Amino acid sequence: MKYSNIPAAQSVVYHCKARAVKDIVISPGSRNAPLTIGFTEDPFFNCYSIVDERCAAFFALGIAQQTGRPVAVVCTSGSAVLNYFPAVSEAFYSDIPMLVISADRPPKKIDIGDGQTIRQENVFGHLIGYSANLKLDCRAEEYSEETLSNPEISKKQEEVQHHNDGELNKAFNIAIKDKCPVHINVPFEEPLYEKFTEMSVSPVVLESDEVSGQRDSLSDLDQFAEIWNSSSRKMILVGVSSPGALDQDVLDALGNDPTVLVLTETTSNLHHPNFFPSIDSIVAPIEKSEDKDGLFSDLQPEVLLTFGGMIVSKKIKAFLRNYQPSHHWHIDTKKAYDTFFCLSNHFVSGANDFFKAFLPLCKTSEEGYYSRWESVRQRYLAKRSEYLGQIPFSDLKVFQHIQGTIPKGYQVHLANSSTVRYSQLMDMDASLRVFSNRGTSGIDGSTSTAIGGALYDTNPTLLISGDLSFLYDSNALWNNYIRADFRMIVINNEGGGIFRILPGKEETNNFKDYFETVHKLDFARLCALYNIDHSLVTDEEGLSRELSGFYEPSHTPKLLEIRTPRDQNDKILLTYFDFLS
Amino acid sequence: MKYSNIPAAQSVVYHCKARAVKDIVISPGSRNAPLTIGFTEDPFFNCYSIVDERCAAFFALGIAQQTGRPVAVVCTSGSAVLNYFPAVSEAFYSDIPMLVISADRPPKKIDIGDGQTIRQENVFGHLIGYSANLKLDCRAEEYSEETLSNPEISKKQEEVQHHNDGELNKAFNIAIKDKCPVHINVPFEEPLYEKFTEMSVSPVVLESDEVSGQRDSLSDLDQFAEIWNSSSRKMILVGVSSPGALDQDVLDALGNDPTVLVLTETTSNLHHPNFFPSIDSIVAPIEKSEDKDGLFSDLQPEVLLTFGGMIVSKKIKAFLRNYQPSHHWHIDTKKAYDTFFCLSNHFVSGANDFFKAFLPLCKTSEEGYYSRWESVRQRYLAKRSEYLGQIPFSDLKVFQHIQGTIPKGYQVHLANSSTVRYSQLMDMDASLRVFSNRGTSGIDGSTSTAIGGALYDTNPTLLISGDLSFLYDSNALWNNYIRADFRMIVINNEGGGIFRILPGKEETNNFKDYFETVHKLDFARLCALYNIDHSLVTDEEGLSRELSGFYEPSHTPKLLEIRTPRDQNDKILLTYFDFLS
Repeated sequence: MKYSNIPAAQSVVYHCKARAVKDIVISPGSRNAPLTIGFTEDPFFNCYSIVDERCAAFFALGIAQQTGRPVAVVCTSGSAVLNYFPAVSEAFYSDIPMLVISADRPPKKIDIGDGQTIRQENVFGHLIGYSANLKLDCRAEEYSEETLSNPEISKKQEEVQHHNDGELNKAFNIAIKDKCPVHINVPFEEPLYEKFTEMSVSPVVLESDEVSGQRDSLSDLDQFAEIWNSSSRKMILVGVSSPGALDQDVLDALGNDPTVLVLTETTSNLHHPNFFPSIDSIVAPIEKSEDKDGLFSDLQPEVLLTFGGMIVSKKIKAFLRNYQPSHHWHIDTKKAYDTFFCLSNHFVSGANDFFKAFLPLCKTSEEGYYSRWESVRQRYLAKRSEYLGQIPFSDLKVFQHIQGTIPKGYQVHLANSSTVRYSQLMDMDASLRVFSNRGTSGIDGSTSTAIGGALYDTNPTLLISGDLSFLYDSNALWNNYIRADFRMIVINNEGGGIFRILPGKEETNNFKDYFETVHKLDFARLCALYNIDHSLVTDEEGLSRELSGFYEPSHTPKLLEIRTPRDQNDKILLTYFDFLS
Repeated sequence: MKYSNIPAAQSVVYHCKARAVKDIVISPGSRNAPLTIGFTEDPFFNCYSIVDERCAAFFALGIAQQTGRPVAVVCTSGSAVLNYFPAVSEAFYSDIPMLVISADRPPKKIDIGDGQTIRQENVFGHLIGYSANLKLDCRAEEYSEETLSNPEISKKQEEVQHHNDGELNKAFNIAIKDKCPVHINVPFEEPLYEKFTEMSVSPVVLESDEVSGQRDSLSDLDQFAEIWNSSSRKMILVGVSSPGALDQDVLDALGNDPTVLVLTETTSNLHHPNFFPSIDSIVAPIEKSEDKDGLFSDLQPEVLLTFGGMIVSKKIKAFLRNYQPSHHWHIDTKKAYDTFFCLSNHFVSGANDFFKAFLPLCKTSEEGYYSRWESVRQRYLAKRSEYLGQIPFSDLKVFQHIQGTIPKGYQVHLANSSTVRYSQLMDMDASLRVFSNRGTSGIDGSTSTAIGGALYDTNPTLLISGDLSFLYDSNALWNNYIRADFRMIVINNEGGGIFRILPGKEETNNFKDYFETVHKLDFARLCALYNIDHSLVTDEEGLSRELSGFYEPSHTPKLLEIRTPRDQNDKILLTYFDFLS
């Protein structure tokens, strides 16, 4: 096997292998050649080559989101590393492990007028788990191979390697244990392409179980159980969560407790017949009710228990901020956001572990918190069905149709922001595993994330996206690793439909140009560029027809474009909430 | 006229107008609605709507590069602002003024689990001229309109406005005087869309002439003139420079001094019959000569005088680092990079002002520094002509052909990195104005920059790009402001041709996949997507034919794709340098 002859490159590659970081997404460059050589020459690694670093990092994020293991992205010096930033911030807020490895120039070449040279150290500021700044190897700076036998230089190089090992260990430990992105900046001096057949360094890998923040707070649950058991209105609200986060007996215990209301979103990936999966359909009618205060007071929980990541529903956030629970407890191994400005406890634990310990202490009663809202739910389900039966072809109708026909077991990615919001209004089959970049909720990398996420799944993957989000990340399709069974549905309402839904919008040219940003781009042509099979539907009949064969096996990935009426979608959605009232 | 009802938005818009910042590039969003309303409702501003913030910022940079005035980019909260970073770093290193205005959430909504919310303050770290963090208006935070009559709240709001004015003045002064990007982060609370018919604030604009760093160092030129006059080998090396940087009498004085050698690049935009515009053609043959040391010692300057931005030629940098001048003086109003590790003086001045003051103190002599190298130049010009006459169709040949046929007066943009390097080997007509993003030398925004640069020019604009760079920035074409006379030439060698030229490359699959990153994308399809007129040539006859009509007026922009042989370009270029020897 071959190695770069540069010790720092050998160390980085060695640490990746030692930590079982197998997936390496490389963007082309010369300064990172020592790393590219090291990774691509070793068959242990699965290397991917993606030119646009913005897409490369979201692709890596998609892989890591599924495997739970850090994925490395590797780029050359200069502005390349800055293009990773959108995905890095998404990983930071979504607790996804990622190693951002940037090649750099030697320190003395920074800010002296060399090309592709910027101040790279700590460039991700406060949006990264750790910034490891490696030191330049002695041999690369000013010493020839021979001079390394000089004891003074040899000692200096030993210090460099000690420093680099320390930084690498710290970065890897944080990325793995805290599930976050870390930045590893590696300066290299020319020559960059030379190879050895043996490693010249012996890196020291020190794994650590230490995680930042406090640990294990499940020891004193009795006092919390006391509060829980004396409360008749207990709400559990689940944000973005990986499939299978809770065991079935936990789901059943929560679902069957009449004093507990479990609110979920499609991104919660939690299902039980008694859970409430469409939060907005409960809250919206109350907002419009004459007895708003009374109804909201009825719904107001005494104890709010949350876990998972971000909550999509703005309505539930607004409600819980206005009608705060007496106790808000959050369960997470790492962090607890004070989303409703009344956080009273952070259980530092996984959700399943917490419930396994907590549920045996819990008592239930016959109080009617659940049943009162269950009748509201039954009412809106009937109303929804009635409304969907009478509306014309539109975004809302399309989501009903799509979500009802996704084959079982699919991995489903929802782009921001209309898509993930609409999807909350419809049911998702419990076998589907749903993902969305809700850490920063950007429109910038959903397609790349889905393509990466699809990679190692035994089942196929579907991306549902709006047109703006899809066009933003169009370079995602410049990718040699798109699975033939990858499916994309783009709901094309010719602009940012979400802006039409917001209060305060006016039908002016300024609105059209600067908010909605109407476009006339032809997705058939975009698909032709990237050899994606394209089909277009503009009505329900066409949609049924196309969907019937859409998920069949194929030799190329497929994109189904659904054109909906730009100027009616908003009215149909807003009328839906009125109709429920 | 209408205004946002939010004081901070009014202030930002007011300061822009007061400082004659007319060009505003807006990306769609809701959090930035108060700014979008303010800018688009006032006909003073030229507003542009571009969805992809990465492209939007490079487009803005292109405008500012030409006008010399700051251009504002405006985006919503969250990861949107991170997509500006590649262009921000280019502006930072290229001394281009830019106002990066990001809408933000209120401080209490950061890191509590809200969507599109990240830590935005100071997010550009050390790669920005200044980070102005505005404060949230009182009325938006917790007080109603009425409560503003409460003297305590009114006082608090006055303090906020005072702070915001101060930050805005500082940011604008730095951007304008130091010609650099600055970040203005503006928190807004809902409601975001409300309008007033009158301004509710009276911002205080304080212009300042103060610039960071020392000023005016032209007072004591005599000692430098003494060194200059006693030196027989004086080299002037010009980096990236705006057209018209030196008056004709200065050019003549320098060009006609036989003790002075003026080395320029196509990006220097400086022309005189006695200047040396193709540095590599002089240096390369010496590198390969048996009498390398002797020849390099002959070329070694006693005084090196530099001005302008980055130097493209790696060979001249390597030479001057190895054969350092006794004196390296740099002329610039702002900064002096120690590019050759021997900088001895920084003249804080514009280049023309410096020479106007310095040349009257200078004496010339008959010494033969110029004439010795002029004979070398004549030799390589003959050799180049001979070589170009005998080689097949290839990148090198194509550049000769293109550069010789660009209509007079065009604005020309050169993408990174093969393009700008090849262009150095050929002559550029003195009437052409040449630009390239050499601050960071990234491949990430050349097309967007050129489209922006074209906007206010009385003459048309040509972009010359490689295929990878063009594909990287393909979203640049998602732009409603591309002039019909905009012309693009893409030299398509199906991958990163520059990597084939680098030493150490091997013809392996790893090389093809991870360095050259070969692709088979069809530019005709890309052009079809964006309604660009496309033509393709694959040989010299076709190239002549297509170029003959290429610059004619048209209703749509045009792209000429030139396909060159991927596996021969590198050999033809490397043999060229051998042939010169």
